[in-house]
Amino acid sequence: MIDLKNIIRNFPNFPKEGIIFRDIMPILANPPYFQHAIEQIEKTLEDVDYDIIIAPESRGFIFAAPIALRQSKPLVLARKKGKLPGDVEKQAYSLEYGEDYIEMQKDAIKPNQKIVIIDDLLATGGTVGCICKMVEYLGGQVSALAFLIELEGLGGKEVLNKYNIHSIIKY
Amino acid sequence: MIDLKNIIRNFPNFPKEGIIFRDIMPILANPPYFQHAIEQIEKTLEDVDYDIIIAPESRGFIFAAPIALRQSKPLVLARKKGKLPGDVEKQAYSLEYGEDYIEMQKDAIKPNQKIVIIDDLLATGGTVGCICKMVEYLGGQVSALAFLIELEGLGGKEVLNKYNIHSIIKY
Repeated sequence: MIDLKNIIRNFPNFPKEGIIFRDIMPILANPPYFQHAIEQIEKTLEDVDYDIIIAPESRGFIFAAPIALRQSKPLVLARKKGKLPGDVEKQAYSLEYGEDYIEMQKDAIKPNQKIVIIDDLLATGGTVGCICKMVEYLGGQVSALAFLIELEGLGGKEVLNKYNIHSIIKY
Repeated sequence: MIDLKNIIRNFPNFPKEGIIFRDIMPILANPPYFQHAIEQIEKTLEDVDYDIIIAPESRGFIFAAPIALRQSKPLVLARKKGKLPGDVEKQAYSLEYGEDYIEMQKDAIKPNQKIVIIDDLLATGGTVGCICKMVEYLGGQVSALAFLIELEGLGGKEVLNKYNIHSIIKY
């Protein structure tokens, strides 16, 4: 039986003191595990009605891109500052010191389109919350948020409590 | 007929004066086009013998991850500085001012394993060249490099001339 949680490696104090880094590299390096992770995320979206998948940079790309292909849904990238050309929508999020921006192309979402965001990890919900705001500002609706991993206790689910949240592995 | 080049948007002077940015967002947002791009990259690797796919951060993830899944090959990430836990191999590459690092986990590649690198764009070949060096330092062999887009005239093919290079769309 494939146990995704069991293959994840834990690195205490990375990238800084007090954080346990959950390393998904062994999932990606193990084709049946990666396949299973993708299928499990897809399963959470089975009954969700949506038009577009949004992938947050950069590890969101790893899960959102294959699912967009498998489900024949348009893939939209939410990227870090200055990486997307054309007319972009931006939202600031807090960093330890100061803030940074996440951006999406304004023409990526049309009014009333339903979107899901697929990312590797839900922690504080900061960047995904920014993306939800941008989607709504552009007239879209957030149908669901799907994560491979959820770090409970960091408040992500509370910050995003008006949304339909799914996650496969919880810590 | 699906013409990938025709759907790419060109943004002159982004991210800076004199550069034409080739925007692949319309490919990603158009499921038959994205599917076609993936199939075309896979086709270039049909006769290549390899064990592992390496995905350079971050747009490489978009193409390498689906192909790793479809081909049942292990996926290894090459990431920007400070993002991978554990024992990492690093290689410096030049930026306009100063330099930066690209990193891989040392245990990601075993001696004599054959690898391919899949990325969205070949320009100067700087980061992919760094990844090839790391692969070889770890005892691996570079079987092929596959890109969606190649910007001819920026010298990437010359820098990487000892490798087997494939690209789908050329400018």
